[in-house]
Amino acid sequence: MIRRREQVFHGWGEPGAGPALPDHADAWLREHLGLEGGVVEAPVDLADVVLGELALAARVRERLAAVADVRDDREARVLRAAGKSYLDLLAQRAGECTDAPDAVVAPASAAAVADVLRICNEEDVAVVPFGGGTSVVGGVAPGRGGRDAVISLDLGRLDAVLGVDGQLVRLQPGLRLPEADHALRARGLTLGHFPQSYEWATVGGCVATRSAGQASTGFGRIERNVVAVRLATPLGEIGTREVPASAAGPALRELIVGSEGAFGVITEVTLRARPLTAERRYEGWFVSSFAEGVAVLRGLAEDGLAPDVARLSDEAETEASLALAGRAGLARTLGRVRPALLICGWEAQMGVRRTEARRRLRATRALPAGERAGRAWLASRFAGPHLRDDLLDRGAVVETLETATTWARLPALKAAVTGALGGLHVGCHVSHVYPTGASLYFTALGRRDADDPAGQWLRAKAAACDAILAAGGTLTHHHAVGRDHAPWLAGEDGPLGVEVLRAVKERLDPAGIMNPGKLLVG
Amino acid sequence: MIRRREQVFHGWGEPGAGPALPDHADAWLREHLGLEGGVVEAPVDLADVVLGELALAARVRERLAAVADVRDDREARVLRAAGKSYLDLLAQRAGECTDAPDAVVAPASAAAVADVLRICNEEDVAVVPFGGGTSVVGGVAPGRGGRDAVISLDLGRLDAVLGVDGQLVRLQPGLRLPEADHALRARGLTLGHFPQSYEWATVGGCVATRSAGQASTGFGRIERNVVAVRLATPLGEIGTREVPASAAGPALRELIVGSEGAFGVITEVTLRARPLTAERRYEGWFVSSFAEGVAVLRGLAEDGLAPDVARLSDEAETEASLALAGRAGLARTLGRVRPALLICGWEAQMGVRRTEARRRLRATRALPAGERAGRAWLASRFAGPHLRDDLLDRGAVVETLETATTWARLPALKAAVTGALGGLHVGCHVSHVYPTGASLYFTALGRRDADDPAGQWLRAKAAACDAILAAGGTLTHHHAVGRDHAPWLAGEDGPLGVEVLRAVKERLDPAGIMNPGKLLVG
Repeated sequence: MIRRREQVFHGWGEPGAGPALPDHADAWLREHLGLEGGVVEAPVDLADVVLGELALAARVRERLAAVADVRDDREARVLRAAGKSYLDLLAQRAGECTDAPDAVVAPASAAAVADVLRICNEEDVAVVPFGGGTSVVGGVAPGRGGRDAVISLDLGRLDAVLGVDGQLVRLQPGLRLPEADHALRARGLTLGHFPQSYEWATVGGCVATRSAGQASTGFGRIERNVVAVRLATPLGEIGTREVPASAAGPALRELIVGSEGAFGVITEVTLRARPLTAERRYEGWFVSSFAEGVAVLRGLAEDGLAPDVARLSDEAETEASLALAGRAGLARTLGRVRPALLICGWEAQMGVRRTEARRRLRATRALPAGERAGRAWLASRFAGPHLRDDLLDRGAVVETLETATTWARLPALKAAVTGALGGLHVGCHVSHVYPTGASLYFTALGRRDADDPAGQWLRAKAAACDAILAAGGTLTHHHAVGRDHAPWLAGEDGPLGVEVLRAVKERLDPAGIMNPGKLLVG
Repeated sequence: MIRRREQVFHGWGEPGAGPALPDHADAWLREHLGLEGGVVEAPVDLADVVLGELALAARVRERLAAVADVRDDREARVLRAAGKSYLDLLAQRAGECTDAPDAVVAPASAAAVADVLRICNEEDVAVVPFGGGTSVVGGVAPGRGGRDAVISLDLGRLDAVLGVDGQLVRLQPGLRLPEADHALRARGLTLGHFPQSYEWATVGGCVATRSAGQASTGFGRIERNVVAVRLATPLGEIGTREVPASAAGPALRELIVGSEGAFGVITEVTLRARPLTAERRYEGWFVSSFAEGVAVLRGLAEDGLAPDVARLSDEAETEASLALAGRAGLARTLGRVRPALLICGWEAQMGVRRTEARRRLRATRALPAGERAGRAWLASRFAGPHLRDDLLDRGAVVETLETATTWARLPALKAAVTGALGGLHVGCHVSHVYPTGASLYFTALGRRDADDPAGQWLRAKAAACDAILAAGGTLTHHHAVGRDHAPWLAGEDGPLGVEVLRAVKERLDPAGIMNPGKLLVG
């Protein structure tokens, strides 16, 4: 019942698959992070993972098994015990799964999801919805909220394309993004949604976490493409109408998008898909500085001319990327000028946009890095989480975080977060641009504190969250709130704003069984 | 304290100003609606309006006067007694203002708004926020919700531009749209938001009612341009962060947009503005049929090539428009082919979009009506409500209603609404297009039932609402819910969805003083 294809429990992707850190990376890792090179700590075997005692009463298990597939073997529980954050992987690699769910429950229909929620509500069992399991904010951590038992509600069997009408596609939530794109290709369509987690992320998970993909500058974040959504809650269903726009009061759709399983389970999504195009074009530029690149991107975005993908690495990230890509010679040459690498991608209707972007970049004396750089970026766009496994083997601390703010506040926000992550090697890029501002995506690398690896990152992360809120950023541009950001949500939404979300939760999930501790502090 | 410029209490615009129905209209009105011609019923004088007794305790009035301007003279109360729907105007013209508010309270700052709400919450006085007063769905009806007293909270003094940073503009809610555009023009900006109520509508009112403007196909509905918003509630303030995008859980912003004064009062809005452009171009086409025009618009919208303004009148509306515009000769000529008039407007970056729209229209053998038709539409874009006053004088029933749905459901929705309005002369146009669907805007005209004018329209309207929901439309694409659509909201959002909105209201406004009976049935 669990999908045939599963990620390895202690890392990213299928066992042994995916790109690996190249040999020439060692020099850079030694010089900048003080890593020795080679594997210093390997993950444990599945057989050695430590699980907690099963806490689901046999009677409840029987009730659930009557409406859905239920598994509670070692493999199933371990595979649903955590997401894919640095701290998740540290724990999984060490075999620490005492919090693993008591069962993995996989219903086959929206009606069966509703049945599972009804039973869990009656039996006071916590429910953690599970789509792709790619959360990096503790979104699928098996929180019990004080209860004895928790189940992982696996949506993998709800993976059908329910209908296509023009660009309107009705999908089940457990469909993985590549599966959705594969099914839509025959209709000449694509979702156009490419988060770094693309290979494993599900449609429902993207909607539940307010996802953005790498091409969302052009195609829009997931919420821009959600036409309608259905949510099963412990007290019944909410479905929003399948209409292109409405003035019928507050948008319930926008309350469900981003609800992260805390209000219920998304059982159906109607999305706007995009026509497939053949003219995709990606290219790179070396801009004289990050600030100069930001100015160009701001101008393009304000004028409605932004590329569909716009990624501007700062000087530190540019240098590290080139070195890790084996282009140390180029890095040394460029080292004297410390440029910022800009990747521009056009997926469709590039005409005037590409011409104008090139004209403006040339006017700043940016150096074209050509389509070779664009192709290199495309080839490695999903590589990050694979390489992370190698870095974890080598004893690194490696994590990312992201935010967004207005153009005016961007420089101060970048400086504040970089400062908060002091002690780590920090690279940053603009990942998405908007007419009114942009996102910043940070990668922090360092040598793992062997004595207190979790504390080392938790302190850095807390300082970064504080800095983001103080500098006028959002807690998260596309990683969601989960368990990890929940303590800061009142800083984002204000105390009364959080009270409103709590009121919604109490109305839909009065017993508090839905994804305890996520979004709202328990 | 109330603004210097006010609309006439029984109609639209300033007394005597605005376009009037031309003489040649009489023939059409006689033939199609059976109207005799000439004024059959004039509005009463202000002195003859019947008001209710003042119900606000002197002590409460004093408390309010300490934090805001307070007026309770005849003129102030009558001017805040109703919006501008057909039924509102019928009552105002007849001088029926027994429900007028007990005072018009105008605070001068966001802090003073909060003070007013606090006092009203303590004293159990109902509060009806009042921006431009242009609601056509009973949104500013002075509902008491069972209380003795109700005030109109006039936001006219909060009319400042608080800041401009690039395309990000921070505005107070009481700013009227022309005032906002005038202030922004010096910065080379416009809001690009042009509802038919443009002359009087306020920024806060547009946000509170989830407004769309005539150019929103290109510039986006108001919610697409709201970056952040502040809401004063009886229990305190909610402010959303000024960021271009966020994944920090459900979007509270989208809960405040469209809240119609039922949760609190919008005290500040940060919007994305647009650069002014010089190249505006509008033109008309006679398409061989409404269905053919819909097909062209769908194709353009799906391909990202829609004009910024796209208005496609059906055959009946085209015929009536030409006749009322004094082009009866043309109407007779065209009468044999019964074409559908399409107005396409490009506000900026028209290049490939206009070329492609023209190419596709020519391919359908559509007849160009040229820029003359475009200019005529632009010249009369805000004329409708002015002409309505003349129709009311002549004894007509005249009202509009609107909806939206997916492209596939559009023909059946149009037929269902037209059928529901049986007995009236119904014209319809597509007013906004989206990649996944379009809006339909209906104008219903007829001879007023002298014995039961309100009942005549209420029955037609109820039948139309039922038909819309049954045919998969939204209750309203841009008129909002107000009092008039509130009984149908459970049909739109479902019973549990409405419960969610009620939970939000109860958390922010436990006493229920905010705009009673609007959005949610009292």
